[in-house]
Amino acid sequence: MNKIQKPTLEICFTPDAVSFIDLTGKIAVVVDIFRATSTMVAGLASGVTHVIPVVDMADALHYKSQDYVTAGERNGEKIEGFDIGNSPFEHMAQEFKKIVMTTTNGTQAIETVKNDAEQVIIGSFLNLRAVTNYLKAQNKDVVIVCAGWKGRFNAEDSLFAGALALKLRSDFWWKGDETLFASHSYSSVKNNLSKMLKQSSHYKRLEKNGVSDDMEFCLQIDKFKNVPVLNENILENLPK
Amino acid sequence: MNKIQKPTLEICFTPDAVSFIDLTGKIAVVVDIFRATSTMVAGLASGVTHVIPVVDMADALHYKSQDYVTAGERNGEKIEGFDIGNSPFEHMAQEFKKIVMTTTNGTQAIETVKNDAEQVIIGSFLNLRAVTNYLKAQNKDVVIVCAGWKGRFNAEDSLFAGALALKLRSDFWWKGDETLFASHSYSSVKNNLSKMLKQSSHYKRLEKNGVSDDMEFCLQIDKFKNVPVLNENILENLPK
Repeated sequence: MNKIQKPTLEICFTPDAVSFIDLTGKIAVVVDIFRATSTMVAGLASGVTHVIPVVDMADALHYKSQDYVTAGERNGEKIEGFDIGNSPFEHMAQEFKKIVMTTTNGTQAIETVKNDAEQVIIGSFLNLRAVTNYLKAQNKDVVIVCAGWKGRFNAEDSLFAGALALKLRSDFWWKGDETLFASHSYSSVKNNLSKMLKQSSHYKRLEKNGVSDDMEFCLQIDKFKNVPVLNENILENLPK
Repeated sequence: MNKIQKPTLEICFTPDAVSFIDLTGKIAVVVDIFRATSTMVAGLASGVTHVIPVVDMADALHYKSQDYVTAGERNGEKIEGFDIGNSPFEHMAQEFKKIVMTTTNGTQAIETVKNDAEQVIIGSFLNLRAVTNYLKAQNKDVVIVCAGWKGRFNAEDSLFAGALALKLRSDFWWKGDETLFASHSYSSVKNNLSKMLKQSSHYKRLEKNGVSDDMEFCLQIDKFKNVPVLNENILENLPK
């Protein structure tokens, strides 16, 4: 924290960039807009009570014997032998309470930060205001961690980071050039977010898989009010 | 090259991101706006005939015995024992013909790509149009490699990448989300480039070192018409 007592805000455009930052005492906001973190928020807002994010498919199957529903994707497609995929609509079906989930990028990003950050929360356009309000109330340094695509930069996560940075501008010190860049980029496309993202690589990839509805859903702003937080490897909603 | 015979254009926001791309047969445009690549362009436009970029300070001193002027910086400051620093004004003084140069980021970025890319050229706002025209005439895939700051993203190099991507839009297929993001960010700040970059981390760092004039100089668009290219480890201007 700096001399006039505002916490800092930083953005990592990819999980690898976390290696440049000391996460000690900081809140990490993990973001994977298409679709992992949007789906986590949507499910936990709609009746799911526990989501365990895991890196390996084998780990997910291990929880199946403990009455967890297995969910996830690899390369944007449902995993063979798993109960459900990574669509927010599946997770909102109100059939499931406990889900174990593994995805190409989002759950890996959680793994990257969970041992070093003081707290890990889940961000998406769906709960942008709720995340904003929570962070403003904590008075702690924040790092927004974009999941990206297999280690590379992606547009949708970085635009969300810009949106969140703008919301937090007056309460935090922006640190690093990523905040500057992402906020300018978000400002210039916010009225055409969906149109701009239709040109993005991941949108085109998922469109081929027939999940355009999922993506339109994930771009809704403030549809939900919950903030998922990682407690002992389980994501649950923060108390309101 | 894809089916309708346009070459591709990609951006790496940091040298590390090059690891995701096969550079074989591609032209790498190395960018370090504050100040290495701007200074190389300015020097070579003003009487310098050879610039050898090296990674280590010891390597630079080795060339001193071969009548090379030693130039460079570490952390934005002139290196003790070197003849000159990394200011474009020093390199334009028309006193020197042959310079060996080592910098914190720019010369490292050249090192990262020089063995894999088919050709390495030097980009900056100072020679934006010249670089654009050269690339349009080659009909080869292009990768813009931002030097960043010690492995991290920086605003000025990424904004230049956005500017160059926009110039090449009709002649190249944009590949990856970086092109999309950088071009939107550049479009939104291009009329206030200097004002926006005054908030950037590297600008503030260099401002403390008293080189604000250097940075204003480096943000001039199309001041020079030369395109430096790496031949056998030596940067020289491409023939006009």
